[in-house]
Amino acid sequence: MNKTRLEAFSDGVLAIIITIMVLELKVPEGENFNDLLSLLPVFVSYILSFIYVGIYWNNHHHLLHSATRVNGKILWANLHLLFWLSLIPASTAWMGEHDFAKATVTVYGVVLFMSAIAFTILQTTIICIDGGKSFLAEAIGKDVKGKISQVLYLTAIIVSFFNQWISLAIYLIVALMWLVPDSRIEKKILESK
Amino acid sequence: MNKTRLEAFSDGVLAIIITIMVLELKVPEGENFNDLLSLLPVFVSYILSFIYVGIYWNNHHHLLHSATRVNGKILWANLHLLFWLSLIPASTAWMGEHDFAKATVTVYGVVLFMSAIAFTILQTTIICIDGGKSFLAEAIGKDVKGKISQVLYLTAIIVSFFNQWISLAIYLIVALMWLVPDSRIEKKILESK
Amino acid sequence: MNKTRLEAFSDGVLAIIITIMVLELKVPEGENFNDLLSLLPVFVSYILSFIYVGIYWNNHHHLLHSATRVNGKILWANLHLLFWLSLIPASTAWMGEHDFAKATVTVYGVVLFMSAIAFTILQTTIICIDGGKSFLAEAIGKDVKGKISQVLYLTAIIVSFFNQWISLAIYLIVALMWLVPDSRIEKKILESK
Amino acid sequence: MNKTRLEAFSDGVLAIIITIMVLELKVPEGENFNDLLSLLPVFVSYILSFIYVGIYWNNHHHLLHSATRVNGKILWANLHLLFWLSLIPASTAWMGEHDFAKATVTVYGVVLFMSAIAFTILQTTIICIDGGKSFLAEAIGKDVKGKISQVLYLTAIIVSFFNQWISLAIYLIVALMWLVPDSRIEKKILESK
Repeated sequence: MNKTRLEAFSDGVLAIIITIMVLELKVPEGENFNDLLSLLPVFVSYILSFIYVGIYWNNHHHLLHSATRVNGKILWANLHLLFWLSLIPASTAWMGEHDFAKATVTVYGVVLFMSAIAFTILQTTIICIDGGKSFLAEAIGKDVKGKISQVLYLTAIIVSFFNQWISLAIYLIVALMWLVPDSRIEKKILESK
Repeated sequence: MNKTRLEAFSDGVLAIIITIMVLELKVPEGENFNDLLSLLPVFVSYILSFIYVGIYWNNHHHLLHSATRVNGKILWANLHLLFWLSLIPASTAWMGEHDFAKATVTVYGVVLFMSAIAFTILQTTIICIDGGKSFLAEAIGKDVKGKISQVLYLTAIIVSFFNQWISLAIYLIVALMWLVPDSRIEKKILESK
Repeated sequence: MNKTRLEAFSDGVLAIIITIMVLELKVPEGENFNDLLSLLPVFVSYILSFIYVGIYWNNHHHLLHSATRVNGKILWANLHLLFWLSLIPASTAWMGEHDFAKATVTVYGVVLFMSAIAFTILQTTIICIDGGKSFLAEAIGKDVKGKISQVLYLTAIIVSFFNQWISLAIYLIVALMWLVPDSRIEKKILESK
Repeated sequence: MNKTRLEAFSDGVLAIIITIMVLELKVPEGENFNDLLSLLPVFVSYILSFIYVGIYWNNHHHLLHSATRVNGKILWANLHLLFWLSLIPASTAWMGEHDFAKATVTVYGVVLFMSAIAFTILQTTIICIDGGKSFLAEAIGKDVKGKISQVLYLTAIIVSFFNQWISLAIYLIVALMWLVPDSRIEKKILESK
């Protein structure tokens, strides 16, 4: 089966997800700088989501790069990941348009959490096919970074019922934690050369 | 002629179709969890259509993979398929926004049925070029799965005039039936190795 | 320079153009079959434009396939073509939403005419680089089909001031004329084998 | 790492950016030629932005073509560039819908300026990896053209507080200055053959 086409399709979907979020940056009605101010929450959530989709694209890039084969299960695990990522624009918009109201921050966190779970499922599916001693399995190891992220998302979701600003700070911390591409795989590639 | 470009273009269109359906997930006006409830029918139809477009992408992937040559007829049969698939977002939205009203479920079924017909035409066109004893022809065989789907769609369309929920159940059953990528072609690929 | 990337970018733009036209198929407010009727002019113009973009994608495919090199001039001639094609969705929507009013049909024709001119410019630019005795130059010959189309577009534009239905018929005739992929290039490819 | 996928993703994002600007060409309410007049400022800003995105696609094409390796830093420098370019449609729309009001022209200039800075960062990142004597480093030289553009953007931003038409003229001049693909790299490629 054809890994290239899987990558191309995923790139297409991710490129569109990252770009349709721009459509939420609705043109302000006034023509002065002040009118831009009302866009600020929308803009801040756009930046946060842009970084997140960028992170997923980066890690997806590394993940598939290290996959040796593609089968039906991987195709569906990949579509499952794209499904949750496709909900990022709508949840970003909801959060931005209501000035980070509590419920919107909770829902945003749920989408991030489910995306993280879907990424883990995709990762596990790829490792299953290549076997436990595969390149990817060794590079990922116990996937501490992935597990920490998921715990942090869960924490942020619970916290959002009381104080959404702490939750937003947690989302930002997780994003910064992943800003560097998955160096475990990169290191592994270098070692293997 | 160039199969890669045909795949790339189809991937592009399918990626966009799957993603613009998200645009229908309009941001709720309120900022509470309750406000999400009104999105439920839209969300459920989004999931159903997401699965359908995913299935088509998967099977399209397999179909073109097994094609050995591409000519003008295949290009147009492919565009014809993309045309019907491109109507999925609008019919999904219509269905979702009117809480699965009868007529909307009928129209959704017609779009699914025509997409299935278009897929069969593309399949037949590819087999025609490669000859009746081609790899694809043997893998597909009598295409029982395809024919059953079309009969089920027709049934669902008729039933939708009386009870749309049964029709929706049928659409779901067909989707589940196809959730696994076309194992006939996959098996054939394995056998041929 | 890299022909693949030029094709990929063009495919992306064309895939998006063909798909955003769907966004104009706005969900009818009612939930009955009758409510679909009001969509009819929009739907008919969608089909016409879908065919046109399909034709351009097909011919663009053939044209670039026969190009041996890509330089800065070709990049810009290609962008110029994409510019005019990018106006098709808006002019289609204008035409569809005003039930083929005269002025809308004229503007639609102007966009088609300019796209045809842009295609000729791209074609000429590619031939210039490869030389007058190139593969493409011989395949195109005097480009009678291209010239006839342009004359027909001009005729339709003028006629649209008096009777837009004749103009629409002409647009349809030109479309049918091109529905087959450019067999001149295809023949040439076969001969050269 | 995989340069192809970086190019594919960037092409996808750029193709979508260039195309969603079309969505701003909202269908006029009337059906006469006069009704098109109100679209004129939107249309003019569409053309300007189309040229700019085209220029960035062209130069991005050349830049990555000359990169020998891709690492995590380049991925993020590239996403940073795409971020600023993704703001072009919204700022174009704001400018077009308010008939080039002063503040809108300023903001448009800021987006162009930041995009230029992001491009320089990407360029520098690529040169860093390949070393100061790399192919790209020599082709770019002191990057006079890039520096002049940035000075001109800054000038235009300041001028826009007093007279936005001069700023627009400057944006146009910079665009024309870049309309030819980066001949420094092209020349270098020819020399090296």
